[in-house]
Amino acid sequence: MAAPLKIAIAGLGTVGAGVIKLIDANRDLIARRAGRAVQVVAVSARDRNRDRGVDLSRFQWVENTVDLADVDADVIVELIGGSEGTALTLAERAMANGKAFVTANKAMIAHHGLALAQTAEAKGVALKYEAAVAGGIPVIKGLREGAAANAIERVYGILNGTCNYILTTMEAEGRSFDDVLADAQALGYAEADPSFDVDGIDAAHKLSILASLSFGTRIDFGAVVTTGIRQVLAGDIAQAKALGYRVRLVGRAENGEGGLLQSVQPCLVPVTHPLAHVAGAMNAVVAEGNFVGRLFFEGRGAGEGPTASAVVADLIDIARGELGPAFAMPVSALADPGHADAGARVGAFYLRFTVADRPGVLAEITAAMRDANVSIESLIQRGEAPDGGVLLVMTTHACPERQVTAALKALDGAAFMVGAPMLMPILDM
Amino acid sequence: MAAPLKIAIAGLGTVGAGVIKLIDANRDLIARRAGRAVQVVAVSARDRNRDRGVDLSRFQWVENTVDLADVDADVIVELIGGSEGTALTLAERAMANGKAFVTANKAMIAHHGLALAQTAEAKGVALKYEAAVAGGIPVIKGLREGAAANAIERVYGILNGTCNYILTTMEAEGRSFDDVLADAQALGYAEADPSFDVDGIDAAHKLSILASLSFGTRIDFGAVVTTGIRQVLAGDIAQAKALGYRVRLVGRAENGEGGLLQSVQPCLVPVTHPLAHVAGAMNAVVAEGNFVGRLFFEGRGAGEGPTASAVVADLIDIARGELGPAFAMPVSALADPGHADAGARVGAFYLRFTVADRPGVLAEITAAMRDANVSIESLIQRGEAPDGGVLLVMTTHACPERQVTAALKALDGAAFMVGAPMLMPILDM
Repeated sequence: MAAPLKIAIAGLGTVGAGVIKLIDANRDLIARRAGRAVQVVAVSARDRNRDRGVDLSRFQWVENTVDLADVDADVIVELIGGSEGTALTLAERAMANGKAFVTANKAMIAHHGLALAQTAEAKGVALKYEAAVAGGIPVIKGLREGAAANAIERVYGILNGTCNYILTTMEAEGRSFDDVLADAQALGYAEADPSFDVDGIDAAHKLSILASLSFGTRIDFGAVVTTGIRQVLAGDIAQAKALGYRVRLVGRAENGEGGLLQSVQPCLVPVTHPLAHVAGAMNAVVAEGNFVGRLFFEGRGAGEGPTASAVVADLIDIARGELGPAFAMPVSALADPGHADAGARVGAFYLRFTVADRPGVLAEITAAMRDANVSIESLIQRGEAPDGGVLLVMTTHACPERQVTAALKALDGAAFMVGAPMLMPILDM
Repeated sequence: MAAPLKIAIAGLGTVGAGVIKLIDANRDLIARRAGRAVQVVAVSARDRNRDRGVDLSRFQWVENTVDLADVDADVIVELIGGSEGTALTLAERAMANGKAFVTANKAMIAHHGLALAQTAEAKGVALKYEAAVAGGIPVIKGLREGAAANAIERVYGILNGTCNYILTTMEAEGRSFDDVLADAQALGYAEADPSFDVDGIDAAHKLSILASLSFGTRIDFGAVVTTGIRQVLAGDIAQAKALGYRVRLVGRAENGEGGLLQSVQPCLVPVTHPLAHVAGAMNAVVAEGNFVGRLFFEGRGAGEGPTASAVVADLIDIARGELGPAFAMPVSALADPGHADAGARVGAFYLRFTVADRPGVLAEITAAMRDANVSIESLIQRGEAPDGGVLLVMTTHACPERQVTAALKALDGAAFMVGAPMLMPILDM
């Protein structure tokens, strides 16, 4: 058997400790599958003395995390997080030193993945990030290799477990966003500052990575149209249910004639669609290939075990000598994505207005719809809104999104409007 | 860019022609992902003149299929089928000649996969078979690499699209097995001789391959306990539905203390389980790892496009130099699976009796259950059976399977029994 693959780990939070636990627990199995032992040799973290449930005395302790780049190791595993700072410096220094680099850092890959991949190519080392998207689900490998024979037409999914937990709990218990978020924070499912999750930024990081892999285009995180779930009301979920849909935060990317279109938005998902059955903190990804058809992957999207599973899968690949390009092809071969016009995307929509309870409101709204050439499929006027007024819900027939936004613009500032309207696409995939 | 990867294809049925169509359609994309062109150079099939919708004049035609092993190609792709004969001879000769070998042949891998893998190791060539299990779903790669960090505790799924099509059509339309099978044959979804599919043999081939990859054990196809779906009545599906279950042909493998247990059987799947939502000819695989938890993969399990997608994914891997061992580790590292006693497997069961409609029958059956220590959870006596008599359905509490089979044995030959009883496990996974 070949010499052990020597690993140094930066960051010993839940995931870092999980990687050590996994390597301890499955040591023999990993050696059989990797063809050699995978051995942690050095670690670095902020606090040396915190009890993490693992014995660190076996490993070299490195005080200054970026100095891990210089230890005698084959691979540096980065589990610190943050798109800049220590994580990025460590990545650059480690690869410059000829070491492979494995990370779970979706923000850093979304912002600097291409530059890092170029460094990896120049130095002939591996850059891997299976854990950065959808936790334990091997979706990076599934797209990069499993579906590699296909032109991928669309890729979409539920990419943030915190949002899915909040939405499915709101659905099951009929409670408000704020109420469920507070519980989720108390239980540790959501951060004290939840904005990265609930505003859709985390899902947008992941989507931009999936889009690059799927379409062979350069990562374009800045172009992801992102809306979070703060504006979703329990009433929206109830109305969607009555119409045969569930509300999910869906990241989706399509590479059409006009270029790449990437969005993260709460959407209405038909109950017959596999994404409608993704509950709690699970993640799921759908890829549609021109030969394979629809592939669906589901699993746990975060947490110690699933994330460690993805990190160690990357390590086993590296141990086996699998050093392919980070984005399936050299960075120079990635195409420049054009920017498609989101307004041109055709689909049906869910619209919810919170309006004053007085005569004539419905006539004004339907007139605005007619003027913008939006055809209404169903209309429900029901129930009191949380901020006073009445909830008025409608679904449209399929039309270009710009027609719906034009109607909303025409209604903007109308005296009867109690709160901002809510627009959600109806997933037709 | 490196020299093209030269391919020779044996067998030009639906899948063989599909591989050529895919390589034609996605040529540039494949070259970008593979780092080199993938180029068909030679083909062989029974009938040179049949119209397959692809231009064969570009390729060397080889009259005697096994002679493909000697053409100037890097990889031989075998799409003939059959566990012995031409396919096997070609595999051995191709690898003996130092060529990589890619196949969609589940029967050959189930029967001869280990011997072929040893030849591949000895010759230092790749042996790949992604298309052999679950069509376009990259589940071989998912288990061999994606979940490689985990000890897999159970692997199970819906592995035969024909059976799933028949069962879900019976469910949707309330029709009998024979009736739906005849339709499926007319539509080309089932073979004229459907026994490989409906008797569970095809699913058993695939399960034995998944078990080896999941547990790091030698393939043991002969030990798969296999029951097909011929005995499933429309009434079973209706009763199962009333109880909150759907009937699916489930292949499942567990590697417990007593050894490996592999079975292919119609099972009751709770409607809340992802497998209950797998409809029509789709396939799905669930793997449970000790760190990642439950992974779920779904997609099209057969047909031209999905199977070609899996074959070409293997070709791209080979083009990229990914030549790892066929069963994730060298054959010598695979453990010998013990045989667990299926009778010891604990679970709840569905039982259906077709009995004469006279007093005392229920007392005799429930007495036999009591004597075998089987506790009944629910009992429904309802409706006429197709062969006369009455359908009597019960579900048990969890108990070792041998207690239920003992009760059935005690009832064997009872005068009131109109037909053979039907026993289906209730999936508790």
